[in-house]
Amino acid sequence: MKVGLIGLGKMGLHLGKNLIDHKHEVVAFDLNSMAVEELGQYGAIGSESLKELVQALTKPRILWLMVPHPVVDTVIHELLSYLDEGDIVIDAGNSHYKESLTRYSSLREQGIHFVDVGTSGGIDGARNGACYMIGGDKEAWEIIEPIFKDTAVDNGYLYTGEAGSGHFLKMVHNGIEYGMMAAIGEGFEVLEKSQFDYDYEKVAKIWNHGSVIRSWLMELTQQAFSKDAELDDIKGIMNSSGEGKWTVETALDLQAATPVIAMSLLMRYRSLETDTFTGKVVAALRNEFGGHTVEKNK
Amino acid sequence: MKVGLIGLGKMGLHLGKNLIDHKHEVVAFDLNSMAVEELGQYGAIGSESLKELVQALTKPRILWLMVPHPVVDTVIHELLSYLDEGDIVIDAGNSHYKESLTRYSSLREQGIHFVDVGTSGGIDGARNGACYMIGGDKEAWEIIEPIFKDTAVDNGYLYTGEAGSGHFLKMVHNGIEYGMMAAIGEGFEVLEKSQFDYDYEKVAKIWNHGSVIRSWLMELTQQAFSKDAELDDIKGIMNSSGEGKWTVETALDLQAATPVIAMSLLMRYRSLETDTFTGKVVAALRNEFGGHTVEKNK
Amino acid sequence: MKVGLIGLGKMGLHLGKNLIDHKHEVVAFDLNSMAVEELGQYGAIGSESLKELVQALTKPRILWLMVPHPVVDTVIHELLSYLDEGDIVIDAGNSHYKESLTRYSSLREQGIHFVDVGTSGGIDGARNGACYMIGGDKEAWEIIEPIFKDTAVDNGYLYTGEAGSGHFLKMVHNGIEYGMMAAIGEGFEVLEKSQFDYDYEKVAKIWNHGSVIRSWLMELTQQAFSKDAELDDIKGIMNSSGEGKWTVETALDLQAATPVIAMSLLMRYRSLETDTFTGKVVAALRNEFGGHTVEKNK
Amino acid sequence: MKVGLIGLGKMGLHLGKNLIDHKHEVVAFDLNSMAVEELGQYGAIGSESLKELVQALTKPRILWLMVPHPVVDTVIHELLSYLDEGDIVIDAGNSHYKESLTRYSSLREQGIHFVDVGTSGGIDGARNGACYMIGGDKEAWEIIEPIFKDTAVDNGYLYTGEAGSGHFLKMVHNGIEYGMMAAIGEGFEVLEKSQFDYDYEKVAKIWNHGSVIRSWLMELTQQAFSKDAELDDIKGIMNSSGEGKWTVETALDLQAATPVIAMSLLMRYRSLETDTFTGKVVAALRNEFGGHTVEKNK
Repeated sequence: MKVGLIGLGKMGLHLGKNLIDHKHEVVAFDLNSMAVEELGQYGAIGSESLKELVQALTKPRILWLMVPHPVVDTVIHELLSYLDEGDIVIDAGNSHYKESLTRYSSLREQGIHFVDVGTSGGIDGARNGACYMIGGDKEAWEIIEPIFKDTAVDNGYLYTGEAGSGHFLKMVHNGIEYGMMAAIGEGFEVLEKSQFDYDYEKVAKIWNHGSVIRSWLMELTQQAFSKDAELDDIKGIMNSSGEGKWTVETALDLQAATPVIAMSLLMRYRSLETDTFTGKVVAALRNEFGGHTVEKNK
Repeated sequence: MKVGLIGLGKMGLHLGKNLIDHKHEVVAFDLNSMAVEELGQYGAIGSESLKELVQALTKPRILWLMVPHPVVDTVIHELLSYLDEGDIVIDAGNSHYKESLTRYSSLREQGIHFVDVGTSGGIDGARNGACYMIGGDKEAWEIIEPIFKDTAVDNGYLYTGEAGSGHFLKMVHNGIEYGMMAAIGEGFEVLEKSQFDYDYEKVAKIWNHGSVIRSWLMELTQQAFSKDAELDDIKGIMNSSGEGKWTVETALDLQAATPVIAMSLLMRYRSLETDTFTGKVVAALRNEFGGHTVEKNK
Repeated sequence: MKVGLIGLGKMGLHLGKNLIDHKHEVVAFDLNSMAVEELGQYGAIGSESLKELVQALTKPRILWLMVPHPVVDTVIHELLSYLDEGDIVIDAGNSHYKESLTRYSSLREQGIHFVDVGTSGGIDGARNGACYMIGGDKEAWEIIEPIFKDTAVDNGYLYTGEAGSGHFLKMVHNGIEYGMMAAIGEGFEVLEKSQFDYDYEKVAKIWNHGSVIRSWLMELTQQAFSKDAELDDIKGIMNSSGEGKWTVETALDLQAATPVIAMSLLMRYRSLETDTFTGKVVAALRNEFGGHTVEKNK
Repeated sequence: MKVGLIGLGKMGLHLGKNLIDHKHEVVAFDLNSMAVEELGQYGAIGSESLKELVQALTKPRILWLMVPHPVVDTVIHELLSYLDEGDIVIDAGNSHYKESLTRYSSLREQGIHFVDVGTSGGIDGARNGACYMIGGDKEAWEIIEPIFKDTAVDNGYLYTGEAGSGHFLKMVHNGIEYGMMAAIGEGFEVLEKSQFDYDYEKVAKIWNHGSVIRSWLMELTQQAFSKDAELDDIKGIMNSSGEGKWTVETALDLQAATPVIAMSLLMRYRSLETDTFTGKVVAALRNEFGGHTVEKNK
């Protein structure tokens, strides 16, 4: 099929190659012309503008957006000038499902399909076989299924029907991911503080061979320790890109008790700081009532 | 090799068959004579007492204990009357590493090797290939390695050296397991409470195909949903058998911040109750200061 | 001063009496005419509509809203037809500070002052001396200070300046309240499950006499236990009315690690359910890998 | 009454003065002779050894221990050489209730009473009126009640009967204290990160006047901010001296879900570190699957 691919970052570029590997025609655009060129050399048709990209496609046009969620509306807004009824806009980035619901409704009014796709599997998945969770109109889905089938790992896509349900499912997936990663991290922290002297790479490896906690994340843990045996070079700063927060916010809205996911998120925030105001207040209080010594900033 | 297998519960029975499949001679004992008989029919030499079992072995005798941790000492105590210097006692159940350290020292005084082995992989692993974490004397390890190599899944065993380090590693493994399971559970709870109508078996399946959270636990999740699509038949009572608690206690001793594992444990305890005293106090307080209505027990 | 009091619920009615006790003229309105009548008998001027209420005031009119936060906009919307430049709208209920910021801006465009007031102290405080946290224009504040000074407990009001800062401060106050209440509840839960047999009323009483945790909440705890020694009659269902959730959401937006407040909120949600989907998933998983028995719904 | 006071640290010295203020005869001992001298100048009879102290008392002798919990056994062990049947040993420090149970039984065998007393109220309470939670034999209690009545704040003592119940109650009190302090700290952290510019001393002050969260801890918060408006000089390192940990450990033993107290403890541990191994593992994993940048230690 012919696909307009917009956004050639870490994920988009690899997806583009994946599409091309499967004999799809990719018309590509990114503000970064270097990325367009790179994908061009791999077989894509480069374009210098969204307009040019749209013009290179055939109806119903398939637009695959792989851009950071804050710019999705900007891209869609411009696209709207060029699109026609029946065209299909796919947002395969990490957008909030509520925004996808809004986009779905507003595009629908113009006769344009909006499909929300959660993409998992990381960079490697994008390149060699991703995992897709897909919400949106069945009519559109039937047209675009081949490009997902081809670029997914075997059985690695699920059409979940209702608009928004793809991004919702991906959001929750990431919430689970936060919790799992924190559980793994905490486990190794206990090992690190213990009286025993483990070889972490070997530990992760053994846990990937027959144990209950064998998982891709544990494989990646093994891989990480194989590069830096004690992670000495790395700071424990845990950034986050939104989906964990959205999961917790959604849980609050749904009154769902999700302490594990919530704590995994809060500890990420905690890791961004070297000292906390909470700590200062508690230390000051201990000093006030018990005369406990307080450590001072010089 | 000739192995004395003591304890033929869910894990022990399957391990016995696994050993026999790999041409080891198993002398088996359990208080439950039915289990002894079952393994006997599979090729084991049954015994009617620990004494008989020990007598059927050749020196250095290898005793593989697969009994609930509260009875390990009782078994060892009786065994001591029959054992000789150089014999090897393996505790492959879920014992506390501190108890293993004590047992190691006290057996060592009598010239007997004690090897602490954490066994993971569940029943299926016991039968078809387990995952072992092994602490204890190198001298003993070199003798018994074959039985672990043979009954483990490929590469599924790690000799971690120091006494206690096997059970410690298994304990932490289970702590991670608690956290991962809670993360998965919470994710599905958010799905369940959401506006969307997901097919959970399909969701678990897609998450096992290419997603970041693919894992054995997610495969089991898929399997569970395949049997009961919404888990309607099951009560959400989360029992626990100790290792999660030990992990949190150890984390407290080590001053390691492990909120995710700790919360996964506390929520298990919470699930054992239909109402809480905490809740009663908070509800009463809300009523006292704000006149908020309290729900009454009839 | 002459004050238009809108909303005569638990808080509003008591505040009205408090105002009247301090010689303020109260013009009162509520959809519930019984409440209007009750306050009328106490000395207020009843009114049958917002229009009538506004007409009974003198410029600059002071409108004190004490209504549930979801209807604030509706009330303000109607009021706008009757108000004039320089009038002052006070929202002393538990509104979200972001909404207060919006209301402030939109009323300001019409020359009307909007003052956001967080009111604490419960029903008793409303009647006998409340605690106010007040944001909004200084110009308006200087006019209305007397009514707050008079109805507050000694020193019980703070003008925090910027629009929104009053409701923000009250929101955080409630977040702390959630955490404190949960801490107290959990403490008594440990006592309840312990081997000892405490008289909880006496425990709360002693903790209010000289201990580090003496507090109004502990006094209320004592009071609650004096009415029902073991809280046998009360269900531990912890409802919530929003501010705790807002605090956690705000903490997430600010990337502030607030695990204690977050957990106090999540446990409230947990208390609304007798069983959880999380629990079902975890129980099912334990069964899958370990053959652990699952409790069934009949 | 005549009381042998052993241990003149922050708490003991002030308690000694408090006892003397109430016309009790204090025979004092501490390894620190300066402290003995200081209390001597205030009216106590100093002693240079435990033996001398015991000899200066009359039967039944009353021994009040106010020493760090790790040395309680050492002190009792020496005392035992000098004590007679019917003497009363009071441990008013922060000992673990399980140790108190053991001490009670072992002293009882020798006919000596052991009374476990939890003392709250901080240094100021010790000096001017403490809060006591008291477990132990009724027979002993009836003898010593006057010294507690006199040195407590009005109504500030509770005899809870069973041995161990005094220290247990104090332990839980401290658990609640941990939770409350964390809640207060987190609240101020949200204020600190907010868009508003609050005067924290004034905030704490207003919250102590009529609000739901008014409490001694909030008064101390006000006091702390009065000395250092933004706590700039203080590091947020939250040390702990054991009772919070014991509370959580006890909760685990009792299968009581205490997430708020548990998190307040874990965040104390977290505050002892500038970086965490958990964080390193999570950061490494994010890099592995998503190519997310990792911050490096130089």
